[in-house]
Amino acid sequence: MKENKKVLCFVAELFEDLELWYPVLRLREEGIEVKLVGREAGKVYKGKHGVSATSDLSFSEVNAQDYDGIIIPGGYAPDKLRVIQEALDLVKTADDMKKPIGQICHAGQVTVSAKILAGRKVTSVKAIKDDMVNSGAEWTDEEVVIDRNLVSSRTPSDLPAYVKKFIEVLNMDIM
Amino acid sequence: MKENKKVLCFVAELFEDLELWYPVLRLREEGIEVKLVGREAGKVYKGKHGVSATSDLSFSEVNAQDYDGIIIPGGYAPDKLRVIQEALDLVKTADDMKKPIGQICHAGQVTVSAKILAGRKVTSVKAIKDDMVNSGAEWTDEEVVIDRNLVSSRTPSDLPAYVKKFIEVLNMDIM
Repeated sequence: MKENKKVLCFVAELFEDLELWYPVLRLREEGIEVKLVGREAGKVYKGKHGVSATSDLSFSEVNAQDYDGIIIPGGYAPDKLRVIQEALDLVKTADDMKKPIGQICHAGQVTVSAKILAGRKVTSVKAIKDDMVNSGAEWTDEEVVIDRNLVSSRTPSDLPAYVKKFIEVLNMDIM
Repeated sequence: MKENKKVLCFVAELFEDLELWYPVLRLREEGIEVKLVGREAGKVYKGKHGVSATSDLSFSEVNAQDYDGIIIPGGYAPDKLRVIQEALDLVKTADDMKKPIGQICHAGQVTVSAKILAGRKVTSVKAIKDDMVNSGAEWTDEEVVIDRNLVSSRTPSDLPAYVKKFIEVLNMDIM
């Protein structure tokens, strides 16, 4: 296992507060360096319930090869992230490089638009199930689903299982 | 033209304030009776910007045959509406009966889940373009798109053109 792993966490307005912060803090507990990346660097974004998160970096200044994985929170943030082309390119490149990608709740909206879900096993919040299926994914209602480098979960109550599995996949060095 | 037309407007939490209220008020100006329908009757729902709207009826107590058309606002309300099976059944039945259906912004999430978009010409807010295309729709970036009984628009600035066209289609008596 490579030491000093680095993971990017996407951020945009109206992220689901716990779906951003629980994974970020839990990965930091493991000694993993987590950077928040948004449309702009140094910007304060507010979660759905009012918790803040400040972006360290902008999408235009990051490269997939410099990081070991990506995590994407849910809430309404994915609706805003999916129209940022650099964010979609980053997800596509990371997936092509088989880097672990974690998506929870509505985060699948980003991977739909990054066009990486065809033929993949995933789960998500029920509301976007049809969009996942229409993008060619095989959707199941489980707390966490792993398809090679792609780890997905449904809602905040799945967070313990979700991040545990994401860390396992991150430590597999499948790249 | 039949007199005393009746239209249902869908409502759920976090509707886009103007996308609900401008069409409702504009249709009432035409003498059309507009009823708000939500998961529960008599419930106060709050828009994204804080404007309130109270549901007159619940989805379980309405039938498509009793109304001349349906309008669906955008915002985050469609994400909540698309998981209400009675709402999806209502849209599907109304569409089968060729009753005018108006959708703006994110409202296309509801018609994706009602499975009525395959082969239809539509527009929407850019964020859900991929979901519309993946559901089989032909998406174009225009202020208002008409496909038989289905009228669609993109954002609040399209409202004047959108509701004008919806009223025209409503008055065509294409049913």
